[in-house]
Amino acid sequence: METILVIKIGGNVIDDEEALSGFLIDFSKIKEQKILVHGGGKIATELSKKLNIEPVIIDGRRITDQAALDIVTMVYGGLINRKIVAQLQSLHCNAIGLTGADANLISAHKRIHPQIDFGFVGDIDKINGELLLDLLDKNISPVIAPLTHDKNGNILNTNADTIAAEIAIELSKTKKIIFIYCFEKAGLLADIENEETVINAVKLEEIEQLKEKQIITGGMVPKVENITNALKKGVEKVILCNAKNVSSILAGNTNFGTIFTT
Amino acid sequence: METILVIKIGGNVIDDEEALSGFLIDFSKIKEQKILVHGGGKIATELSKKLNIEPVIIDGRRITDQAALDIVTMVYGGLINRKIVAQLQSLHCNAIGLTGADANLISAHKRIHPQIDFGFVGDIDKINGELLLDLLDKNISPVIAPLTHDKNGNILNTNADTIAAEIAIELSKTKKIIFIYCFEKAGLLADIENEETVINAVKLEEIEQLKEKQIITGGMVPKVENITNALKKGVEKVILCNAKNVSSILAGNTNFGTIFTT
Repeated sequence: METILVIKIGGNVIDDEEALSGFLIDFSKIKEQKILVHGGGKIATELSKKLNIEPVIIDGRRITDQAALDIVTMVYGGLINRKIVAQLQSLHCNAIGLTGADANLISAHKRIHPQIDFGFVGDIDKINGELLLDLLDKNISPVIAPLTHDKNGNILNTNADTIAAEIAIELSKTKKIIFIYCFEKAGLLADIENEETVINAVKLEEIEQLKEKQIITGGMVPKVENITNALKKGVEKVILCNAKNVSSILAGNTNFGTIFTT
Repeated sequence: METILVIKIGGNVIDDEEALSGFLIDFSKIKEQKILVHGGGKIATELSKKLNIEPVIIDGRRITDQAALDIVTMVYGGLINRKIVAQLQSLHCNAIGLTGADANLISAHKRIHPQIDFGFVGDIDKINGELLLDLLDKNISPVIAPLTHDKNGNILNTNADTIAAEIAIELSKTKKIIFIYCFEKAGLLADIENEETVINAVKLEEIEQLKEKQIITGGMVPKVENITNALKKGVEKVILCNAKNVSSILAGNTNFGTIFTT
């Protein structure tokens, strides 16, 4: 069975031009079929500030109103997504930039919450895996922005981690999927203060214990939930790492990144 | 041979929410295979003003510097393109939003001019017609923003009229193409002040005479050049009309629009 890599990059790469260029060079060299999902980064916040659009916070939660939605549509769906695609083309990697609205790639619904109306925030209903497989078979790498649609004409702001995980899960029904989940650290660290303490391999059954030991704590909790969800639903392997180490890890270097398996 | 419609809409539709919604409803009902090319409109200029980015004008020509390029990438490639696609999805028209960088759809080079450096403005080298035909065969309508790429990692701001004409020409090599060129008037007018004076049919050989009579004059000259170029290079028919009349014209109503043929 063919292996497909689903790679997610976030703000620490997107906000750093040099890091992004370096990552895209590595991405373009990957021989396997590959999909890139990117997050947002600081550009949307900076643009909001310049336009004097105040973020709407209710009960400590950021709300995506119409003005905020227009900004993320411009920045995530326009500036970041289109620039990544143009850069990949220059590296001879044939890429196509997509949001969830394009070819009905990701349909979603507005988040339902008993107290808070999050505005134009989407929770995923369905991934159009067929479209992705068809593009990959044509040697085209999808580059996906963190935007979905509700089939009623609205674009919805959607978490990039969740999009990447749901894509990995959907494609794992027919393909062997490796989900490479990039973030700002070198991997899951035994000592959060020390980048040298990467735990190289974690089995699904060890996760509870790592939570009890407070090794999986804070911001790592939702990340690991995303990872366990993907593994339980059919993804073969999840690699949690820094984007700068992706090529070393794929070359077999086990000094970087944490590999999660069932 | 199958007929493919290539439809171009401009600022007068994009800047008017009601006109755009009405047009997209009509577009979604078209039975033939169809491609939409959209221009920019005023939103980019308004955003520039809000961000205090002054347009750079040299010798009366607007220059696309890096800041201006970022704005059109956000507005044309993000906001306008993504919103049109989401609206079409809600109308059960499966659409995909593309710039020239996506899947290498339109490669271009920076405009070469003996005196003026236009900045990030592109003149088209090559259209990837195969990609468009493949999407159309899957019943997916391409929605194309006026942006191309130079294969060196740069997005280039490119005239939407030219993009639409070049796509029509490229596809006419294997398909019967009708190019529907929407603008703010009802068609070519015998009296520019009177919308009731639409000239319904124009043959290529009559164009010189219409120029001499000053019926084709001013802003109509480059439009008609685009049209004659398309006809000479294989496009079957060009319909110059107002977007609001497209569905009537396609239904056979000859009271609207000007049909150009060889």
